[in-house]
Amino acid sequence: MGKNLTSRDEDYSKWYNELVVKSDLAENSAVRGCMVIKPYGYAIWEKMQAQLDKMFKETGHENAYFPIFIPKSYLSKEASHVEGFAKECAVVTHYRLKNAEDGSGIIVDEDAKLEEELIVRPTSETIIWDTYRKWIQSYRDLPILVNQWANVVRWEMRTRLFLRTTEFLWQEGHTAHATEGEAIAEARQMMDVYAEFAEEFMGMPVVKGTKTESERFAGAVDTYCIEALMQDGKALQAGTSHFLGQNFAEAFDVKFATKEGSQEYVWATSWGVSTRLMGALVMTHGDDKGLVLPPKLAPIQVVIVPIYKGLEQLEAISEKVMPLVRELRAKGISVKYDDRDTQTPGFKFNEYELKGVPIRLAVGQRDLAAGTYELARRDTLQKESVKAEEVVARVTSLLDEIQINIYNRALEYRNRHTNRADSYEEFKKLIEEKGGFVSAHWDGTSQTEELIKEETKATIRCIPIDVEMEAGKCMVSGKPSVQRVLFAKAY
Amino acid sequence: MGKNLTSRDEDYSKWYNELVVKSDLAENSAVRGCMVIKPYGYAIWEKMQAQLDKMFKETGHENAYFPIFIPKSYLSKEASHVEGFAKECAVVTHYRLKNAEDGSGIIVDEDAKLEEELIVRPTSETIIWDTYRKWIQSYRDLPILVNQWANVVRWEMRTRLFLRTTEFLWQEGHTAHATEGEAIAEARQMMDVYAEFAEEFMGMPVVKGTKTESERFAGAVDTYCIEALMQDGKALQAGTSHFLGQNFAEAFDVKFATKEGSQEYVWATSWGVSTRLMGALVMTHGDDKGLVLPPKLAPIQVVIVPIYKGLEQLEAISEKVMPLVRELRAKGISVKYDDRDTQTPGFKFNEYELKGVPIRLAVGQRDLAAGTYELARRDTLQKESVKAEEVVARVTSLLDEIQINIYNRALEYRNRHTNRADSYEEFKKLIEEKGGFVSAHWDGTSQTEELIKEETKATIRCIPIDVEMEAGKCMVSGKPSVQRVLFAKAY
Repeated sequence: MGKNLTSRDEDYSKWYNELVVKSDLAENSAVRGCMVIKPYGYAIWEKMQAQLDKMFKETGHENAYFPIFIPKSYLSKEASHVEGFAKECAVVTHYRLKNAEDGSGIIVDEDAKLEEELIVRPTSETIIWDTYRKWIQSYRDLPILVNQWANVVRWEMRTRLFLRTTEFLWQEGHTAHATEGEAIAEARQMMDVYAEFAEEFMGMPVVKGTKTESERFAGAVDTYCIEALMQDGKALQAGTSHFLGQNFAEAFDVKFATKEGSQEYVWATSWGVSTRLMGALVMTHGDDKGLVLPPKLAPIQVVIVPIYKGLEQLEAISEKVMPLVRELRAKGISVKYDDRDTQTPGFKFNEYELKGVPIRLAVGQRDLAAGTYELARRDTLQKESVKAEEVVARVTSLLDEIQINIYNRALEYRNRHTNRADSYEEFKKLIEEKGGFVSAHWDGTSQTEELIKEETKATIRCIPIDVEMEAGKCMVSGKPSVQRVLFAKAY
Repeated sequence: MGKNLTSRDEDYSKWYNELVVKSDLAENSAVRGCMVIKPYGYAIWEKMQAQLDKMFKETGHENAYFPIFIPKSYLSKEASHVEGFAKECAVVTHYRLKNAEDGSGIIVDEDAKLEEELIVRPTSETIIWDTYRKWIQSYRDLPILVNQWANVVRWEMRTRLFLRTTEFLWQEGHTAHATEGEAIAEARQMMDVYAEFAEEFMGMPVVKGTKTESERFAGAVDTYCIEALMQDGKALQAGTSHFLGQNFAEAFDVKFATKEGSQEYVWATSWGVSTRLMGALVMTHGDDKGLVLPPKLAPIQVVIVPIYKGLEQLEAISEKVMPLVRELRAKGISVKYDDRDTQTPGFKFNEYELKGVPIRLAVGQRDLAAGTYELARRDTLQKESVKAEEVVARVTSLLDEIQINIYNRALEYRNRHTNRADSYEEFKKLIEEKGGFVSAHWDGTSQTEELIKEETKATIRCIPIDVEMEAGKCMVSGKPSVQRVLFAKAY
């Protein structure tokens, strides 16, 4: 199986597309741009969800659920929001089908036309703020800290599994606050939560920052983001958290009585990550043999493959393996013992490499006699022989080691591919020849940003936060700049 | 708050509608027939999901995700399926909006009309079986045991929160098998899983059985179900599990190579429960003061309310309460200490009664001096004084006791409201005057079933399984019958 995978050097994009399908993460469906997330892929997404949900709850958020449909008129209520979102979306116009009179099949019943069309949510700010108007009267009702796990639809013209699909799964947090400061703190907190999740669980280093005006969410005052670097030198926006100011409260007339008795508009945030993270996970760690999964998100952390001839040998192996399986499971480690007799050990080795299982244990007659297991780690592909009585300890510590190792490897890659440019010439050369992040001075104008984008296809991924300020001059206009910003070509 | 609730005797239907809204479970949205599930309601649904998901996984199922859109032509492929489902559904006809030329807002872009309309899934058999065709070649690929957590849309004309909404949340299992026997065993197993969940976790007794032909799922060979009885004497279908035969495999041409090398159509099941269970939970246990939640699904199992004057008294109470909170939490019990100073204890008592919190602990100055807590249980509304050192033990055992007590109470109610009728006269009298389940003989024909429905509004809820067979004569036609079936008016 692994042998049929296109290598990253040969064609990174093709490698990605093949890997997602061959490793059973997802596939295209019969509906244009919509994917089927297969059980193995969904099991990773469930682990992401469980961890994120835990972190959201630890920071005081509750889940709720709002309608999938948004009345068309709602989208126009926040002026800049409609510009950014209303264009490409699924529009429901009718609510009934009927049998065609000529018996040719079923057709739309024209008598069942909706008075106002409904939009399948591309994001839920409008329907949620329309609801919050009923929930919020006084400062006592604030803050509202709500998250929703949901599917959303954006009618994309060019789609790629996980990275850009017409329908995708995500979570969207929508919070309401009494003060500007509290809302900004919330937006920043959620960026931090996303960064912690990306680094600690996905093993994916990210840069935290804010978006420029042109890259900001439609309707936001400020967009905080985490940006990661893929192995082809392109950046990927992995999560965003928006400070929405009072824009949606004004559009949907959501006011609250302050302690002092005055009426004020409510301050808002929204924040989300999606199944796009699955694509980021594949592209951050995968190699030419397949996925490399971080132990903390791997549906199978350890696979055990018996090498045998005949039922008798298998039984002898299983007798040794089963207590080990139980012991590992008791430690909370997910183990699969693959004793299928329909596939060869070699086939299985390839399959679990392709699927990125962090640790593989193999055991044959010689191991049985010697009281050992052959242990192979997926991240480095190194093998070692481990004594049976030391396997549990070794596996336990190795899972932690692999989690750290793949993070460090990705961090090293990013560091090697993050460069400073002090002239526009140097910048263009770096973007064209080396890719990766380029840190450079920019004069803060949309015009310069647009020019750079047109000439190099690189965009400002973010204005980094928590970094040293360094004054300089814009590489294009020569005008003053207070800090470097991060450019890259991006997904 | 409780005082404003309509009583069940006065108007059961109004009581339900008011209670769902007042207890913060859900509310109607601006989109016709679509509900907003509020955080408190969603927290209960999350607990239901977590338990069901665990039970699905323990029985070998994995989760996956399929597109929300179904091409219109797919619905026609299984003839009886389209009759049952295609009529009332949300139809997506366009994929873009644009600004109106007269500046009046946004309108549907007629240039962006889909070649084939898409249906928002009312259920996913068709899109899933279209996918399974690609997954299944040989007996080695079987069984496929997949579940999906998703939203679905059925354009209902008369909607009620949780019980019947245009959009609702559910899980739908879709399995594929090599043999008929295996598929039937799967369908029955999932009915058993649903029954266990309903009884053990929701505290709601159910009758297991099969549906008559007229009540069967569109496209099913056999529909297994669990039926519960609400406090107004009406039955509620709480979950269904369908044996689909080879109907969908034939419609979507899904064949597999048997071990012997022949090509055969695959056998199928599908099974689901939805947010309708939330309505069943409210109606099974609720009383005139509000919800009564089973401890196993209650988001807050124990609430502690301090009774105090001034900050000093509150601090003295909190000092005693905080270690108790920690101790209860360490035992996995969810506790809320409500020390809000914006509400009176009386207000809080009413609020938690309305919200169905199983156990309330109150502590004031006198309790502090005596080293006691006042404990009130929600199911019986009884109060007792408990010594501080005995609180943890008492709470722990009482949570189990309440779980069992509300189940027994519901079972007693159902037993009192399950009657046998041996003549059609007796039957009509029972249905009209007493309601509940009526167990009677039926000749097995759709004609008789239809006649009874027209004359009494009662339908056959199920042909019970795992009961004693008792031959008799149909109460209407006098023709022979092998067993009694269960009639009721139903939601």
